[in-house]
Amino acid sequence: MQPQRICIIGVGLIGGSFALGLRKAGYSGEIVGAGRGVENLEKAVALGVVNRYETDLSKAVEGAGLVFLAVPMGAMRQVLATIRPALDSDAIITDAGSVKGSFVADAEAVLDDLSRVVPGHPIAGTENSGVQAAFATLYENRKVILTPLPQTASGAVDCVRSLWQMTGAEVECLTPAHHDRVLAATSHLPHVLAFSLVDTLATLQESEEVFRYAASGFHDFTRIASSDPVMWRDICLSNRLALLEMLDRLSGDLAAMRELIDAGDAGAIESIFRRAKQARDEHVQWGRKHS
Amino acid sequence: MQPQRICIIGVGLIGGSFALGLRKAGYSGEIVGAGRGVENLEKAVALGVVNRYETDLSKAVEGAGLVFLAVPMGAMRQVLATIRPALDSDAIITDAGSVKGSFVADAEAVLDDLSRVVPGHPIAGTENSGVQAAFATLYENRKVILTPLPQTASGAVDCVRSLWQMTGAEVECLTPAHHDRVLAATSHLPHVLAFSLVDTLATLQESEEVFRYAASGFHDFTRIASSDPVMWRDICLSNRLALLEMLDRLSGDLAAMRELIDAGDAGAIESIFRRAKQARDEHVQWGRKHS
Repeated sequence: MQPQRICIIGVGLIGGSFALGLRKAGYSGEIVGAGRGVENLEKAVALGVVNRYETDLSKAVEGAGLVFLAVPMGAMRQVLATIRPALDSDAIITDAGSVKGSFVADAEAVLDDLSRVVPGHPIAGTENSGVQAAFATLYENRKVILTPLPQTASGAVDCVRSLWQMTGAEVECLTPAHHDRVLAATSHLPHVLAFSLVDTLATLQESEEVFRYAASGFHDFTRIASSDPVMWRDICLSNRLALLEMLDRLSGDLAAMRELIDAGDAGAIESIFRRAKQARDEHVQWGRKHS
Repeated sequence: MQPQRICIIGVGLIGGSFALGLRKAGYSGEIVGAGRGVENLEKAVALGVVNRYETDLSKAVEGAGLVFLAVPMGAMRQVLATIRPALDSDAIITDAGSVKGSFVADAEAVLDDLSRVVPGHPIAGTENSGVQAAFATLYENRKVILTPLPQTASGAVDCVRSLWQMTGAEVECLTPAHHDRVLAATSHLPHVLAFSLVDTLATLQESEEVFRYAASGFHDFTRIASSDPVMWRDICLSNRLALLEMLDRLSGDLAAMRELIDAGDAGAIESIFRRAKQARDEHVQWGRKHS
């Protein structure tokens, strides 16, 4: 049931680690890399991440039983349109995009048959990018969410699930809409906040001193503002509605907090901080227990 | 010039690490601990953090050449009023509070003579508390900001500076107002944001799933929401005006970002994210070079 050839489009941290994880688990088929940067692809061959690479996407997918798309959300539709004529009729298509609704829309717009499309999203990553950042254990004990469509064949889901499980991931299924709402809350909103906070501070008159006296808490809090701006621009636009809903909720809560601070309402402030600390501490314990 | 006896009121992470850092550097005088929790104070003696403890603050400060206040901002005024009659006439008073304007106001309200008052703030800490969390190297290569008043004697500043330097800290001086503005931006605002975000998510209908699918970026971003709710309530109220100014700036920038996402303005979103990433990356490099 394992595909004899896998094509990975976008051999960076995510796509490269998928390939390395499969190899480590004993996958013996051919892995073909593709994507725009020849230098990165040559490195991918040199590092043993892929067996060979193609710069022409149509050639890359030829004969592949599975095509893994690890490109920015904004490039998905164009890539799907480019590879469509060259795809094997039974090729399974999966992706690693952070927003599932927009990938589904792209697939619906470009492909006639969605029975072999298995949208996916690994909840894993680091702030580094490029194939040199890839490593075989990135997905170990990490969650991967698959969002199969009503049309998706169960055999296709099983194939993608078992490949992810080979890399050590825990696979779960959600609907695309549910996935996008949860990720808007837990990932997309925090990224927007971190980018916005750093930008607000960077444009203060005394920005140099602000950063000079920043403590380790600030470092942790703003780490995700070092993420790739293009990738996150695409994610924000691809998950616009769910993200705006979460942003509006937070803005409302922040406005209420502002009034409490202005009014000096110590009791109300403390009870919100206490509730948040409790939720955070429970969540961390949960994470420790399960990772 | 070193005081023969130091009294530390509040022997937790901050006060305890100050004592341990001084001991490690060879301070040979007596260190007396005080504060409300007898259990904690007994631990402090058992761990060798202080030589002895007093539960009566007046007795604790008797004969001390330096009194170090490491209590919540909201307790400062009461503690100063309690110890005032028992203070040696030449005792230096310093503190470790996160807001300097309110400590100065407390000192002005309680003490007749401010010439031996040296407000201070170590930019260091961990999410742990209590004397068992204290360690001798907490302040090594960390910044300590002193905010002496026009009335403060230079000898008092020199004494406090040299003690902090013994613990390995880098000491710098700012005005209280400048300190509070910078810290509002870099520390108090991020804490309010982290508490608010976690609380917003915890009150979502699907909060359990939200936390379940949270990745490491979310862990980093929300770590400071595990901080002590009472301490942070006090800080927010003590630095109300500067904090509200920063909160309003951020809220304005978030509202603008909301409109850009709603309008799908990819170029403007990308340029803000890019500017933020650049500021964060420069800041981190700076931190690495200097720590």
